Amino acid sequence: ASYAASAVGYLTGRPLIVIGGSSERNQETMGAFQEFPQVEACRLYSKFSARPSSIEAIPSVIEKAVRISIYGRPGACYVDVPAEFVTFQVNGNSINYKECCLPPPVSMAESSAVCLAVSVIRSAKQPLLVIGKGAAYAHAEGSIRKLVEQCKLPFLPTPMGKGVVPDNHLNCVGAARSRALQLADVIVLFGARLNWILHFGLPPRYQPDVKFIQIDICAEELGNNVKPAVTLLGDINAVTKQLLEQFDKTPWQYPPESKWWKILREKMKNNEAASKELASKTSLPMNYYTVFYHVQEQLPKDCFVVSEGANTMDIGRTVLQNYLPRHRLDAGTFGTMGVGLGFAIAAALVAKDRSPGQRVVCVEGDSAFGFSGMEMETICRYNLPIIVLVVNNNGIYQGVDADTWKKMVEFQDAATVAPPMCLLPNSHYEQVMTAFGGKGYFVQTPEELQKSLKQALEDTANPSLINILIEPQSTRKAQDFHWLTRSNM
Amino acid sequence: ASYAASAVGYLTGRPLIVIGGSSERNQETMGAFQEFPQVEACRLYSKFSARPSSIEAIPSVIEKAVRISIYGRPGACYVDVPAEFVTFQVNGNSINYKECCLPPPVSMAESSAVCLAVSVIRSAKQPLLVIGKGAAYAHAEGSIRKLVEQCKLPFLPTPMGKGVVPDNHLNCVGAARSRALQLADVIVLFGARLNWILHFGLPPRYQPDVKFIQIDICAEELGNNVKPAVTLLGDINAVTKQLLEQFDKTPWQYPPESKWWKILREKMKNNEAASKELASKTSLPMNYYTVFYHVQEQLPKDCFVVSEGANTMDIGRTVLQNYLPRHRLDAGTFGTMGVGLGFAIAAALVAKDRSPGQRVVCVEGDSAFGFSGMEMETICRYNLPIIVLVVNNNGIYQGVDADTWKKMVEFQDAATVAPPMCLLPNSHYEQVMTAFGGKGYFVQTPEELQKSLKQALEDTANPSLINILIEPQSTRKAQDFHWLTRSNM
Amino acid sequence: ASYAASAVGYLTGRPLIVIGGSSERNQETMGAFQEFPQVEACRLYSKFSARPSSIEAIPSVIEKAVRISIYGRPGACYVDVPAEFVTFQVNGNSINYKECCLPPPVSMAESSAVCLAVSVIRSAKQPLLVIGKGAAYAHAEGSIRKLVEQCKLPFLPTPMGKGVVPDNHLNCVGAARSRALQLADVIVLFGARLNWILHFGLPPRYQPDVKFIQIDICAEELGNNVKPAVTLLGDINAVTKQLLEQFDKTPWQYPPESKWWKILREKMKNNEAASKELASKTSLPMNYYTVFYHVQEQLPKDCFVVSEGANTMDIGRTVLQNYLPRHRLDAGTFGTMGVGLGFAIAAALVAKDRSPGQRVVCVEGDSAFGFSGMEMETICRYNLPIIVLVVNNNGIYQGVDADTWKKMVEFQDAATVAPPMCLLPNSHYEQVMTAFGGKGYFVQTPEELQKSLKQALEDTANPSLINILIEPQSTRKAQDFHWLTRSNM
Amino acid sequence: ASYAASAVGYLTGRPLIVIGGSSERNQETMGAFQEFPQVEACRLYSKFSARPSSIEAIPSVIEKAVRISIYGRPGACYVDVPAEFVTFQVNGNSINYKECCLPPPVSMAESSAVCLAVSVIRSAKQPLLVIGKGAAYAHAEGSIRKLVEQCKLPFLPTPMGKGVVPDNHLNCVGAARSRALQLADVIVLFGARLNWILHFGLPPRYQPDVKFIQIDICAEELGNNVKPAVTLLGDINAVTKQLLEQFDKTPWQYPPESKWWKILREKMKNNEAASKELASKTSLPMNYYTVFYHVQEQLPKDCFVVSEGANTMDIGRTVLQNYLPRHRLDAGTFGTMGVGLGFAIAAALVAKDRSPGQRVVCVEGDSAFGFSGMEMETICRYNLPIIVLVVNNNGIYQGVDADTWKKMVEFQDAATVAPPMCLLPNSHYEQVMTAFGGKGYFVQTPEELQKSLKQALEDTANPSLINILIEPQSTRKAQDFHWLTRSNM
Repeated sequence: ASYAASAVGYLTGRPLIVIGGSSERNQETMGAFQEFPQVEACRLYSKFSARPSSIEAIPSVIEKAVRISIYGRPGACYVDVPAEFVTFQVNGNSINYKECCLPPPVSMAESSAVCLAVSVIRSAKQPLLVIGKGAAYAHAEGSIRKLVEQCKLPFLPTPMGKGVVPDNHLNCVGAARSRALQLADVIVLFGARLNWILHFGLPPRYQPDVKFIQIDICAEELGNNVKPAVTLLGDINAVTKQLLEQFDKTPWQYPPESKWWKILREKMKNNEAASKELASKTSLPMNYYTVFYHVQEQLPKDCFVVSEGANTMDIGRTVLQNYLPRHRLDAGTFGTMGVGLGFAIAAALVAKDRSPGQRVVCVEGDSAFGFSGMEMETICRYNLPIIVLVVNNNGIYQGVDADTWKKMVEFQDAATVAPPMCLLPNSHYEQVMTAFGGKGYFVQTPEELQKSLKQALEDTANPSLINILIEPQSTRKAQDFHWLTRSNM
Repeated sequence: ASYAASAVGYLTGRPLIVIGGSSERNQETMGAFQEFPQVEACRLYSKFSARPSSIEAIPSVIEKAVRISIYGRPGACYVDVPAEFVTFQVNGNSINYKECCLPPPVSMAESSAVCLAVSVIRSAKQPLLVIGKGAAYAHAEGSIRKLVEQCKLPFLPTPMGKGVVPDNHLNCVGAARSRALQLADVIVLFGARLNWILHFGLPPRYQPDVKFIQIDICAEELGNNVKPAVTLLGDINAVTKQLLEQFDKTPWQYPPESKWWKILREKMKNNEAASKELASKTSLPMNYYTVFYHVQEQLPKDCFVVSEGANTMDIGRTVLQNYLPRHRLDAGTFGTMGVGLGFAIAAALVAKDRSPGQRVVCVEGDSAFGFSGMEMETICRYNLPIIVLVVNNNGIYQGVDADTWKKMVEFQDAATVAPPMCLLPNSHYEQVMTAFGGKGYFVQTPEELQKSLKQALEDTANPSLINILIEPQSTRKAQDFHWLTRSNM
Repeated sequence: ASYAASAVGYLTGRPLIVIGGSSERNQETMGAFQEFPQVEACRLYSKFSARPSSIEAIPSVIEKAVRISIYGRPGACYVDVPAEFVTFQVNGNSINYKECCLPPPVSMAESSAVCLAVSVIRSAKQPLLVIGKGAAYAHAEGSIRKLVEQCKLPFLPTPMGKGVVPDNHLNCVGAARSRALQLADVIVLFGARLNWILHFGLPPRYQPDVKFIQIDICAEELGNNVKPAVTLLGDINAVTKQLLEQFDKTPWQYPPESKWWKILREKMKNNEAASKELASKTSLPMNYYTVFYHVQEQLPKDCFVVSEGANTMDIGRTVLQNYLPRHRLDAGTFGTMGVGLGFAIAAALVAKDRSPGQRVVCVEGDSAFGFSGMEMETICRYNLPIIVLVVNNNGIYQGVDADTWKKMVEFQDAATVAPPMCLLPNSHYEQVMTAFGGKGYFVQTPEELQKSLKQALEDTANPSLINILIEPQSTRKAQDFHWLTRSNM
Repeated sequence: ASYAASAVGYLTGRPLIVIGGSSERNQETMGAFQEFPQVEACRLYSKFSARPSSIEAIPSVIEKAVRISIYGRPGACYVDVPAEFVTFQVNGNSINYKECCLPPPVSMAESSAVCLAVSVIRSAKQPLLVIGKGAAYAHAEGSIRKLVEQCKLPFLPTPMGKGVVPDNHLNCVGAARSRALQLADVIVLFGARLNWILHFGLPPRYQPDVKFIQIDICAEELGNNVKPAVTLLGDINAVTKQLLEQFDKTPWQYPPESKWWKILREKMKNNEAASKELASKTSLPMNYYTVFYHVQEQLPKDCFVVSEGANTMDIGRTVLQNYLPRHRLDAGTFGTMGVGLGFAIAAALVAKDRSPGQRVVCVEGDSAFGFSGMEMETICRYNLPIIVLVVNNNGIYQGVDADTWKKMVEFQDAATVAPPMCLLPNSHYEQVMTAFGGKGYFVQTPEELQKSLKQALEDTANPSLINILIEPQSTRKAQDFHWLTRSNM
C-alpha cells in the first residue's frame, strides 16, 4: 500500500499518505490485538506521523498529512486510526471539515545566484546537465527541454529523471554516462542529489575541481558531500525559467562542434556498438541485451515503464527509452526490491483514470518478482492490462542452468548445494499469471519474445506475463567502475 | 527471514537472531546505498539491537544476541553488519572467539507461593488449567500432563499451547472454551498471558471473582490486567514440578463426577454436535467444517500444523488436533498475516534435520496465502515436501461467488464494484505451486479433497498445494462472544 | 550547553551544534561507562543527529551538521564523539578537511504570489503585520521597517520578533495585541508560526474570515492550522524586498486616520494607562508593573534582554522595550524554563566579541532562576558583566508572604502545608551571586531598585544580581483571554 | 524529580514512577504549548512509557507502571497525563479503581545449580563475594551476612552495595579491592553486574580462569561479558538462603589462616596505611584523605551517605563507611552528575517519615554541586536537616589555586585562559545555603572542619552546608589501574 501510494504520488503529484489502523485506545497497555506504538514506529520513515486525538480531529490531521506530503520536498506521511473510530457515532456538526490545501507554494532562487550560475555555465568547457527525480516532481520538463535546446547542452537523466527530456533527444548523453560525469568541468544538477546514485560527486568518478551548480527545492541538500560553485534554492521549474530569462537577455549556446561533444559522441557510439553486438548474439539462451533490444523495438512511446531487479533494472534502464516525464518507476534511491508490482498497479490505475489505452510495462528480474508476484491476483482481480516481463536468469545477479542444477541435485542434496543466490531453474512464472486468468508466455528465443510481446500489446483487455529465459551466467558489458561506489576504508 | 527465524526458535529452543546488512560506515550521512539507522529502527521490535563496532567484536555481540534471545522470556534480537565487514581482511588472532552461552538458567517459585497455589486449587469448585505458549517454550509437557492426570483437572490450550497435552486428551475442554473460561472459579495459567487472546481476564468473559494462579517466567507479566490470587514466578516446567511435589505430599484429585465436569462435557457435546452437523453437510461448495473434518481424518499424528488466516485459522484450530508440543505454528498473539509459509519452511527444515518423514501441513486462508505465496518457489527449490492447503472462499472473512462476480463485472466496472474484502473467484492457487514443479490440486468436493490429500501425504518427495473451494459466504457457527474483545468505550 | 549554543546561533546566525561524548565503541553492549544510544536519543530533538564513523570522517560530519543547522529553517544538530577518538593518533594526511559551507542559500517567492499579496494588502480594511522570530533569523529588519514606514501599517512582534522594528516605533501596536489580532481583516506573517503563541490563527482570537498572508522559509509551515489567502515561500528578507518592489511600482499607504488606527490607538492608550496605574502604585511590596517600569527607565537601548519565568516573562515582555533585532531571548515557543542564564552567558560572549560595552540584562522569575542559578559561578568565573534581575514573588504564578508562611510553619509541618507552587519567602538570591564574587542587591522599594540598577549598569566590570521582592499575590492586569489558548474539548 | 523518585524507590522499595504533563490532546499537531511526543521520548529511558487513553484509564495505567517498576529488575516508568485531564469532569462511577499490586513475586534458583555453586565455593582457593546493588534492592542483608560469617568468606561491596554487610565487618576486603578482584579464583556476585564498575569481569583486572558464580534476578544479565561457572537466577535473598541451606547440610568454612587472607590483609594494611599517611598530612590546603578521615570520625553510624563527584565520590567511597544497607546513594552505574541533592532530599523525606532524627550527609564535589546547588532552596523550604559537604578543589578532577588564577587573569583574559576543567577559586558555596536560611561554613583547616561538622550534626533542626577548601591539585593515591577500564583499541 505504501509503495503504491508513493508511486501514485510521484505520477500525479498527489499526496502520499498511508493510513494505518491501530488497536482500540482503551485497551492500550493491556495486550490488545495488534497493539503497537505505530505512530512512533513510523517516525523514522515519514515526514509526519500522527494519530488524530478524536474523530472530530481527523479532517485536520489528514489536511496536515496531505499538505506536508506535497509541500517542500515531497515525502510519505502516516496517519493512525484507532480501531474504535471505525464504529464510533459522531455528530456531523461537531466535525471541523477542512478544505483541501492550496497547491504547493513555489519559490525561486535569488537573482544574483542565477546570474552567477549563468556565467559559470557560459564559461564551461565541458558542461553537463543532470536531470533528477526532483525535476520530474516539479513538472519542469518544458523549461528544462527549452534550456537544453536553446543552449545546446549535453544532458543525462538519473533513473527516475528519465523522460523529463526524451531519452532519444540528440543532446542526451546517457549512453556515455560514466565518461560524461568523469570529465565534465561544470555540472548543473536539476533536482538530483549527490548520493550513491551520483557517486557522491567525488573523485575518481568526477574531476576534483568540477564545478557543481545545484538546483534543489530542499536547502539542506545543497552543498551535500561537495562544495558547490553555485546553489539555486527553489522550485526546479521556476528556477530553470529564471536561467532561461537570463539566457534570453544575452543569448548563448554551447558550440556543437566542441571537443567535448566529440568525446561524448565517440564514447556513446562505442557503448552503443558494444550493446548492439551483445544484442545481436543469436546463441541461446538469450542475454540481457538481446532481450531489451527486442522489447525496446515494440515499446509504445507513451507507456509507463516500471522496473526492478539487479542487472535487469540496471541494463534495462540503459536500453529501454522513456519519452515522457514521470513515466518511469523503479527501485529508486533506496534500491528496495518488491516495489515494482505495486508501482505497476498504481500506474495502471492512473492510466485508466487519465488516458485509457496507455499501457504499463513492468520489467522484473526473477528475484525481484519473487517479492510480490502474488500481486498477479490483484492485477487480474481489477483486470488491469499490465504487461509483466520477468527476465529470468534463475538467480540474483547470476544463476546456474538447469543441467548443472540437476547434477547438483542428483549427486547431493540440492537444499545443501544450491548456491544461496541461485533460484530454481525453469520456473514457470507465467503460470502465476495464468493461475488468476491472465495471459502467460514462456519464451526462450527472440522470435517467441517478439511474438508474445506483440500479442500482449494488442490485447488491451487483459494482463499478461512473459517469462523470458536468459543465460544464467549472462552478465553486463564491462564497466569502468563498480555500480556501487566503494569506499577505500 | 525474521519469521522463519522465530519459528525455528520456537520449534527447537534455538535463538532467534536476525542479522541485517547495512551500508558502509564511512559513507554514513552521505546518502549511501540503503543507508538507514537500522539498529534504531529495530529497537521497538527486538529484545536487543546492536551493531558490532568492529569485525573483532562480532563474536561477542552475536553471543549477547543469542543469549538474550533465549534467556528470560524469549524474543528476537537484531545484529547489524556494515557492508564493508564482508570484504575486510582481519587477523584471525585478533578475534575474541566466544564459546556458546550456557543453557538458559532455570528459576523456581518460592515455596510459600507454591503451597498457597495448591491450597487454592484444592478448594476450587470449578477449576481450569490454561496451557499457554510459554509452557511449550519451557518444554513443560511432561510435568503439566502429569498434573492434569494426577489431579484430574480440565484444561484448555491457547493457540500455540496446543499439543503440550494432546488435544484429544480426555481432560481437554477446548471444545467448551468460552464456557470454561466464563464459569471457572479458579484458573491456573501456565505461561499464558491475559492479553486479547484470553480476553484480558475480565468480565463478561470471566467470573468477576475468578481466582487466577499465574505461572510465568516474566515477573512483569504477573498481575497484568487482573489481581491474581497467587503468582508463581519461574520456569514453567520447574514450577509445575513444584506443584506436583506438593500434590505428592498430600494427594488430591478433582472429583470427576462434579457438576463442573457435567457442565463442560455437555457444552462440549453440543459444540461438537453443531460442528459435526456443519461438517456433514453435503451441499456444494463445501463449508469450513466439512473441509477441516476431512483434513483432520488424514492428518498424521506427528505432523507440524502451520496455519494463518481469519476464519480458516480460527475454525481450523478448533477442528485440527495437535498431539505433540511445539507442533503448531500460527499467526500468534500479534495476528500477523504472511508468516505461515515462512513458518512452514522452518518447520520442514527442522523436520528434515530431526526426524525425516515427519510432515508439515500448512493451512492457509486464500487472503493469507496472498501475502507470501511466492514462497512456493523456495519450497520447490529446496524440495521441501510441505502440504499447503488453501481454504479458498474468495475473500477476507467473506467473498462473493463467481456468478455474482461475473454479473458485477458485466454490468459495471469490476474494479469499482468489487467489494474491498473480496478476492478474485476461482483463483487457481495450485498453479502457483505447479509453476515451480510441485504438485497442485483444485478440489471442490469432499471426495476430491480426500483423494488429493491422500496423494499428497503419500508423496513424501514433493511439495503439494491443494486449493480447496468453499462457499464464499461460509461462516462459522454462532459464537457467544465476538472473537475480538470489544471495549465499551 | 545546548541552550547556549542555540542562543549563540540565534544572535549571530552561527550554527547550532551540540557535540556529545559517548563511551568507547568497542565496549558497546558491555555496560560501558555512560553507554547509551545517544544519536538515537537525540533524533527527536534535532535536525541531524550522527556519529562520525572514524576520526577521518569528523570534518565531513561537522560540515554537514553546521550546514544543516543553518540552511533552510535553522535548528540544532547533534554530533556524537566516542571516547576513544579523544586519544586516538591519526595521520593528518588521511583527514579529509572540509572548507566551511557557503552562506545559506536565499530563495524568493514567485512573482504572481507577490502581486496577489500586495493586492490583498491594498484592499485591507484592518491590516496588521506580525513580525516573528523568522524575520529576526533572516536579518529582515531593514526591509520590514521600510515596508512598515512606507505603507504606514500597524505591526506587532512575537516574543522573539521584538526589536526587528523597534518596540517604540509609532506603528507598533504591541500594547493592543489581543485587540489587533482579534479584529484585523488581513494579517501578514513575517516568519511567525500560527502555533499556540499566535493562538493557532483561529476564532475567537481572530475573525473567522481573516485573510492570512504567510511569509516563511519553511514550505510545510504554510497553511498550518488555517487556509491562508496567500503564501509566500522564501527567505523573509528577500520576500519582503519583493513586496517593496511591488509597492514601489504603484506606491500606496494605509490611511493613518482610518477607524482601525483609531481603535488600535484607543486600546493602546487604555492598556498603557492601566499599566501605568499599576506601575505607579506606591504600596509595598511592589507589583510587577512598578518593577518593570523602573527597569525600563534605565535599560540601555542597545542591551540584550534575556527573560524567562511565567508572569515575569509575560508582563516583562509588554513593558521592556527592544530597539534592536536579535536582542531578546526568552523561553520561546517551547516555554522551557532554565534556559535564561545559558542564553545570558551566550549573549555576553557575543557582546564581548562583537561590541564590548554592550550589556546583557537577564530578567528572571524566582522559580525560573531556581533551574540554573548555579550559573552564577560560570558568570563570575568568566567575569561576564551580566545583570541578573530576579523578580521574586516566592512562587510559581503566586506565592504566599513571609508572615503567612511563618504561621503555616508554626502551627503545622511546613513540608506538608507549603502549597506546591510556593517557594520559600525572603530567599536571598543575591547571595548566590555574591558567593562567587559578583555584586548582590536585595531590594524592596522602587528607590532601592533604581539605585541598585544604576550601580549595576555603571559597573561594567562585574556581574550583578538584583533580588527584587514583590507582592506574592501580585497579578497581571485583566486579560480578555487566557494566555494559553484552551480547547473546548 | 526523576532522580528523587528513583532514590526513594531504592531506599524504600517503593515504585519509581515519573508522571509528566503533556499538551492538550486536541491541539496535537497544531503547535500546542510544549507539544512533544513525550511517551516516545521516554521509551529509551524507562521500563514502561504510556499515556492513559482517558481519565477512566488512569488507575489501570498507574497500576501497570507501579507493578512493572518493582517486579523483575526494578526500573523507572513514565506515565503521561495530557493537560486537559487536569480540568476534566468525570463520573466517579465510570472509574475502574485498581487495588495496589501484590508485593513483587519471589523466585529461586534451581536446586542443582545451587548444589553446583556450593561445591565450586567449597573448592575455591581464593574465594571472594561481591555484594551489589541488587542485593540491597532484594533486602538480602540478613542472609548474605549470615553466609559471610558462617563460611568466613572475604567480601567486597559495589558502590551501592555498601552497607548490605557493614563496611567495618572483619571480612570486608574493600580496602584491597583491586587486588581481591585480580587474584580471586572464585567470585560470587550477589546482584552485581559485570559492567564497567567491575571492569567487565575481564583480564587484566581478573584471573583469566576465574570462576564466576552469578546470582541475579535478571536472566539476561547472566553470562554477560564472561562465561560463568554457575548461574543462579532468582531473588537474591531467596537464592542466598538456598545457599545457606546447602551449607547447613554439610557445614563448611573457609580457613581464616589461608594464604589468601594473608595476601588480602597485607594489601589492606598497606592501603590503609597509605591513606592514613595522606590523611595525617598537616599542610594546608587539606587533601581528600584528611577531609574524609575527619568526616568519617563524626559520621553517625545510621546516617544516609549521598555522594557525587569525581575524586570526591571515588575517594570518599573508600573512606566513608556504611553500616546499614540502602543507606548510600551515589552517581551509580551511569555516573550521572547532578543527582546527589535530589537523592539527599529523597533520603531526608524517607528518614523524616520512617525514623526521625536519622541524618543525611551529602558529600559533593564542587563541580557536581554546580549541577543542582539551587536545591538548597528546596532543602530550606521543607526545612530538611541535610548536611551538605562541598569538597572544593576548584575544578573537575583538578583546579588551580587562587594565586595562579589571579595571575592568569591579570596578564590575560581569564575567560580565555581559564583551563576548561577549572572552576572559580574560593567560591563560597556555603552562601548558597545561607541565602535561603540554612547554616553555612567555610572551612580551611581540619579543626574548622571538625568543629563545623560537629555543630551541623548537633543542629537537628536546620540544614547546613560546609564548604571545604582543599588543595586544587590534590590527587588520590597511586592506583594499580585507571578507574575507567580502557580498551586497547
